[in-house]
Amino acid sequence: MTAPLVISVDAMGGDHGPSVVLPALIEAAGLIGSSVRFLAHGDPEALEPIIRKLPRAQGRIEIRPADGVIAMDAKPAHAMRRGKGSSMWNAVESVRTGEASAAVSAGNTGALMAISRLVLRMIGDLERPALVANWPTLNGMTSVLDVGANVVCDAPRLVDFAIMGSAYHRAAHGGGRPSVGLLNVGVEHDKGHEEVREADRLIRSPSLDINYLGFVEGDDIAKGAVDVVVTDGFTGNVALKTAEGLARFFRAELRKTFTAGPLAMAGAFVASGALREMSERLNPSTINGGPFLGLNGVVVKSHGSADVRGFAHAVRLAADLASSDILTEVADTLGRRARLDATSGTESQIA
Amino acid sequence: MTAPLVISVDAMGGDHGPSVVLPALIEAAGLIGSSVRFLAHGDPEALEPIIRKLPRAQGRIEIRPADGVIAMDAKPAHAMRRGKGSSMWNAVESVRTGEASAAVSAGNTGALMAISRLVLRMIGDLERPALVANWPTLNGMTSVLDVGANVVCDAPRLVDFAIMGSAYHRAAHGGGRPSVGLLNVGVEHDKGHEEVREADRLIRSPSLDINYLGFVEGDDIAKGAVDVVVTDGFTGNVALKTAEGLARFFRAELRKTFTAGPLAMAGAFVASGALREMSERLNPSTINGGPFLGLNGVVVKSHGSADVRGFAHAVRLAADLASSDILTEVADTLGRRARLDATSGTESQIA
Repeated sequence: MTAPLVISVDAMGGDHGPSVVLPALIEAAGLIGSSVRFLAHGDPEALEPIIRKLPRAQGRIEIRPADGVIAMDAKPAHAMRRGKGSSMWNAVESVRTGEASAAVSAGNTGALMAISRLVLRMIGDLERPALVANWPTLNGMTSVLDVGANVVCDAPRLVDFAIMGSAYHRAAHGGGRPSVGLLNVGVEHDKGHEEVREADRLIRSPSLDINYLGFVEGDDIAKGAVDVVVTDGFTGNVALKTAEGLARFFRAELRKTFTAGPLAMAGAFVASGALREMSERLNPSTINGGPFLGLNGVVVKSHGSADVRGFAHAVRLAADLASSDILTEVADTLGRRARLDATSGTESQIA
Repeated sequence: MTAPLVISVDAMGGDHGPSVVLPALIEAAGLIGSSVRFLAHGDPEALEPIIRKLPRAQGRIEIRPADGVIAMDAKPAHAMRRGKGSSMWNAVESVRTGEASAAVSAGNTGALMAISRLVLRMIGDLERPALVANWPTLNGMTSVLDVGANVVCDAPRLVDFAIMGSAYHRAAHGGGRPSVGLLNVGVEHDKGHEEVREADRLIRSPSLDINYLGFVEGDDIAKGAVDVVVTDGFTGNVALKTAEGLARFFRAELRKTFTAGPLAMAGAFVASGALREMSERLNPSTINGGPFLGLNGVVVKSHGSADVRGFAHAVRLAADLASSDILTEVADTLGRRARLDATSGTESQIA
């Protein structure tokens, strides 16, 4: 991109609001390392005192006054009807008008999704954005989608996720042709339900040019067997949250182990440097940021509880996506998938 | 039970065959602590030399000659057609004839399931056995089902899992009225797909007397939020394998951490007692054994790679189930669920 990069943020969203979002923008500018600028949507009375205390905010962060804030527990339908003019809505609207190349919010996920669909619209025949989890593995990072939005998926929808996941992985994590696996309960062709078996067939179409390796199982995610794991939003959400629960369980067990007695505590003290490095490597802050894929624009959701560093990483991800070809690439390939359906109607489940 | 407990085992099954299975029976007898006896189905020439070297095998283990062994990679359909007379088939057949109260095999899962269905038949209108995972949590142990067999489930099938899971949890892990949760992508009533929403309604029927706490999410499993987590076999299998993959990932990270340098290694050495105790608590051997629920008889599948201790725990689980009321309890409650469908047809998805 030759034009300066502009990122629009919902400065009021998340558990901590502007006290985290605004310092995170300064940190993000360091990560992005360019002449990036930010539109901070929110209440000027809340934003100004924080910005005044920040170094290097002048000319970098522009306040855009917004009337309201979408509550963290607001219903998406309510947010769509009443959310116009809120900090979240206006952050997304800046992408639609072209003033910004991407929007980031740590606010209410359902509301952000509903507003993004309404304001930016979906590409092609997609119904709702796919949510991607950035999953640390033994090999690096795997992108898993959908992890929540599309609870019921037919085979063509799973193919769409493969297309969007490939484009996303390349834009966010680099590499040439990301490998793709379809999540199933076994790797043989006859395993699983009708939707995955049909998707396994469709996804191999040469016109889509997906680097597809076939079915993968749950334990292949953490192994890093493929770069992109494709699944429906129900299964993906359960897998992600099960993993989050297990990670908490392991941390609790480790804590119990290292406080079990004086010897264990001494051991933990001696090993503390290595333990700190391990928790650093697995720190959710450094892998924060879930993009909404399939919209006519880049929108990234940060965890509501993200700290400054976490929100900065979500902003950096938004910048990476905004600087990539992901939108045109997804639109082009989804178009080829749609033509695939049209030319051989029996191949697809689409009515 | 007043009659002596007899357990039938496929002595040839698993990665290690009789060299693990037979010593495990002696260890299991110690765990079960009763006058338990075993029927060991297999090739006498393979079994006799091992049994001769085992202490206290006399009168405890009876060899039942069997002709063949089902290969670990045999197709279930092949096992059904050609498996008659094999060690696995005969182990299950001993339960059908009443000679044994339960069967245990570390052999091919698909074959064991196919043979068990054919020989023992399913209770009521169940189609295939539900597989249960015994999941260690912050609160103890949670039973998760189905983890693989029933890939597509309608709402009444999920209710059946709640019934069988409750009876199983009581028989295997004790306690009065196990709490039950239905796995979903959120806890509100309108979350998830049609099947879970309908099951959420059916499962509350007072005539079923299930201690149902509502929807749970993936991270509630490791939390131990409920005693029994109910889900379809696709989602459950992915959740279980994802967790297994993550557990391996954490072990690898921990190993990396503790071999990162001399200080970390010294710390690990000092803390080694506590670390050993932790890996003991999470050792799959002590939680080995997956029952097939819904059959007219008790069949327990051991991991193919189980060691002596692991197989012994699977045998102990089989003994616990055989000594409980699980079969009559499941048959009675499934009968009430079927009548629930019959008296209010619109309540159920059954055609």
